[in-house]
Amino acid sequence: MATVKLLSDEEAAAIPAVKAVFDDIRATRKTEFINNFWRALANDPANLKRVWDTLKSVMMVDGAIDPLTREMIYIAVSTANACQYCIQSHTAAARARGMTDAQHGELLTIIGLAAQTNHLALAMQVPTDPEFEVR
Amino acid sequence: MATVKLLSDEEAAAIPAVKAVFDDIRATRKTEFINNFWRALANDPANLKRVWDTLKSVMMVDGAIDPLTREMIYIAVSTANACQYCIQSHTAAARARGMTDAQHGELLTIIGLAAQTNHLALAMQVPTDPEFEVR
Amino acid sequence: MATVKLLSDEEAAAIPAVKAVFDDIRATRKTEFINNFWRALANDPANLKRVWDTLKSVMMVDGAIDPLTREMIYIAVSTANACQYCIQSHTAAARARGMTDAQHGELLTIIGLAAQTNHLALAMQVPTDPEFEVR
Amino acid sequence: MATVKLLSDEEAAAIPAVKAVFDDIRATRKTEFINNFWRALANDPANLKRVWDTLKSVMMVDGAIDPLTREMIYIAVSTANACQYCIQSHTAAARARGMTDAQHGELLTIIGLAAQTNHLALAMQVPTDPEFEVR
Amino acid sequence: MATVKLLSDEEAAAIPAVKAVFDDIRATRKTEFINNFWRALANDPANLKRVWDTLKSVMMVDGAIDPLTREMIYIAVSTANACQYCIQSHTAAARARGMTDAQHGELLTIIGLAAQTNHLALAMQVPTDPEFEVR
Amino acid sequence: MATVKLLSDEEAAAIPAVKAVFDDIRATRKTEFINNFWRALANDPANLKRVWDTLKSVMMVDGAIDPLTREMIYIAVSTANACQYCIQSHTAAARARGMTDAQHGELLTIIGLAAQTNHLALAMQVPTDPEFEVR
Repeated sequence: MATVKLLSDEEAAAIPAVKAVFDDIRATRKTEFINNFWRALANDPANLKRVWDTLKSVMMVDGAIDPLTREMIYIAVSTANACQYCIQSHTAAARARGMTDAQHGELLTIIGLAAQTNHLALAMQVPTDPEFEVR
Repeated sequence: MATVKLLSDEEAAAIPAVKAVFDDIRATRKTEFINNFWRALANDPANLKRVWDTLKSVMMVDGAIDPLTREMIYIAVSTANACQYCIQSHTAAARARGMTDAQHGELLTIIGLAAQTNHLALAMQVPTDPEFEVR
Repeated sequence: MATVKLLSDEEAAAIPAVKAVFDDIRATRKTEFINNFWRALANDPANLKRVWDTLKSVMMVDGAIDPLTREMIYIAVSTANACQYCIQSHTAAARARGMTDAQHGELLTIIGLAAQTNHLALAMQVPTDPEFEVR
Repeated sequence: MATVKLLSDEEAAAIPAVKAVFDDIRATRKTEFINNFWRALANDPANLKRVWDTLKSVMMVDGAIDPLTREMIYIAVSTANACQYCIQSHTAAARARGMTDAQHGELLTIIGLAAQTNHLALAMQVPTDPEFEVR
Repeated sequence: MATVKLLSDEEAAAIPAVKAVFDDIRATRKTEFINNFWRALANDPANLKRVWDTLKSVMMVDGAIDPLTREMIYIAVSTANACQYCIQSHTAAARARGMTDAQHGELLTIIGLAAQTNHLALAMQVPTDPEFEVR
Repeated sequence: MATVKLLSDEEAAAIPAVKAVFDDIRATRKTEFINNFWRALANDPANLKRVWDTLKSVMMVDGAIDPLTREMIYIAVSTANACQYCIQSHTAAARARGMTDAQHGELLTIIGLAAQTNHLALAMQVPTDPEFEVR
């Protein structure tokens, strides 16, 4: 049960600032499909534009990290933050970018292991080694 | 201030089950350096062995995800779990595996963006799109 | 699927310690409606009373922070803690106390931004500036 | 660096509502030592009293869970919430109540394992089994 | 909506590495019932075996902490990590190991109190008392 | 120990894209002081500009929520995310915007209470009431 309305295509089309972002999402992703995250965020057109512009400039450009790895990092953060919607949407996105079952399996294993050692290091309050210092 | 003692090399050498793991850490990593996480975990030799064996089999083998990407995923989870020690140790590990400043910058940007949209999706309680369904 | 039973009005009325709290909830809020949180907590009458008394003394009195702001702070914490029920119940409560769509939009924007910079500051392990010191 | 002042014994003694709680802490725990948590919380005498009264009624009474187990549960929650102060203070409290090194080792192992499977179940979005239903 | 397939008994039986673990789960727990967590994890037979072996060696052996307390610690961690599946499965497990309603009520009260003081200590950035030092 | 370098004024001045943001921070805030968060983020000039522009447009404009309330919401999120730096910097910012000790005390009380009921609602897996539905 969402805490905001999900804007339909008709409602979105009636607000120019929303329509402009929805059009750009469709053009950039080359699909008519707009997922619920954007339909919910559209209640605040200024934030809709801000978040979409950031997402486009971070996730959909050439960079130093390849697109599939970016999605796997997104899944890792979303899992630790317990965001069900984000886990599901970015797992679908990672698959669309070619994530294999073997890669997904390894990703989950690393996430689980990291969580385990995170909690161990926290519970033991391990002091930082000076060897980790940034040069 | 750790909640357990950090075992010195002398103390570790006196416990065969700990010595065996420390020897394997040194041989596998090709360095004499043993960081504090293992010195803390050594208070429980059975868990020391279990965690090290898992870490070795997950992080230090050939697999479907390359070693640097694994470390970046580790940093992502550790950040969301607010584990300071883990952030520092795995950032050092990622650098040792060749992470460039540009890659680190992008990693941080993705982590920050994911956290932002995680919180937005949670606060709006966005319902899952049926399109995300696993085939 | 709850991990405890949700007490019906009949079951609540049969336990004097629960009935007393339910009566006070209804009288304080001026409504017959008792939401599921209290019906679940009623399995432990002592904790039901303790939590309700605290909530009443914190959220329903005149204080230095106005009632709507209190609810917005509640939403912020609940989001970061990924408590779906709490996000939904306190968003409803904030609306009942007059939160406008514009305020809700800004609240979500701030929550998202804070989460982003929280993760960036953690991942970079930024040292505290001495200028932040409490006088 | 605390975000509030830590009240000294002299400052605490000058505020009757604070003095009353500090006296009760000392009498209940049979020690002159007042740890920093209470000295910080003393900036808000009403909350100081509320939290101390709750802590006393939850952690320092005969109940269905023994006192050492209560402290171990406290450590588990504090670890997952990344509260360094709480991890350290409740580990000290658990030791004072007789926690052995073997128990501490097992506690850490369980915390780490739970964190691992928590993240795995979240990342896989495992649906609840109907068999878990409360009767 | 899971992000991986849940393996049926037929699918599991067709993969020897999965079948071996499922057989061991059934033999160890003395029940035909295999819950969804394992059916999801079975997509990665190596991780399935690793997690099951760890769980068996941590949760199902004689140790310094009794089996019911282990499950209560598991619930505490799972709650703070907001893992719904884990909260439900380990509450069922704790009940199966004899957790009474009174114990469950106390467990929830301790978890809630710990979360409250965790957040207070974090928000006040309380400095560690030297008295907590490990000998 | 930061995982990135903190840029000095000299280093910042040598990178035009960083200098432009630092100049804008100083002009907007009317102070020479640049806190460590920006000195760390300056390692990635594109993200520095993106985060600063967002922060300025969210936190430093007239809007539907007043500036002090925005800072209190920021503290709430930062606490639940266990970001020590953010708790300290935004508590200082809130004080600079006029937060009184009474308001700070109430803020902490609400954060603590929310955390407590978040964990209770999660541990009990309370189902959402249909009454919370957005109209």
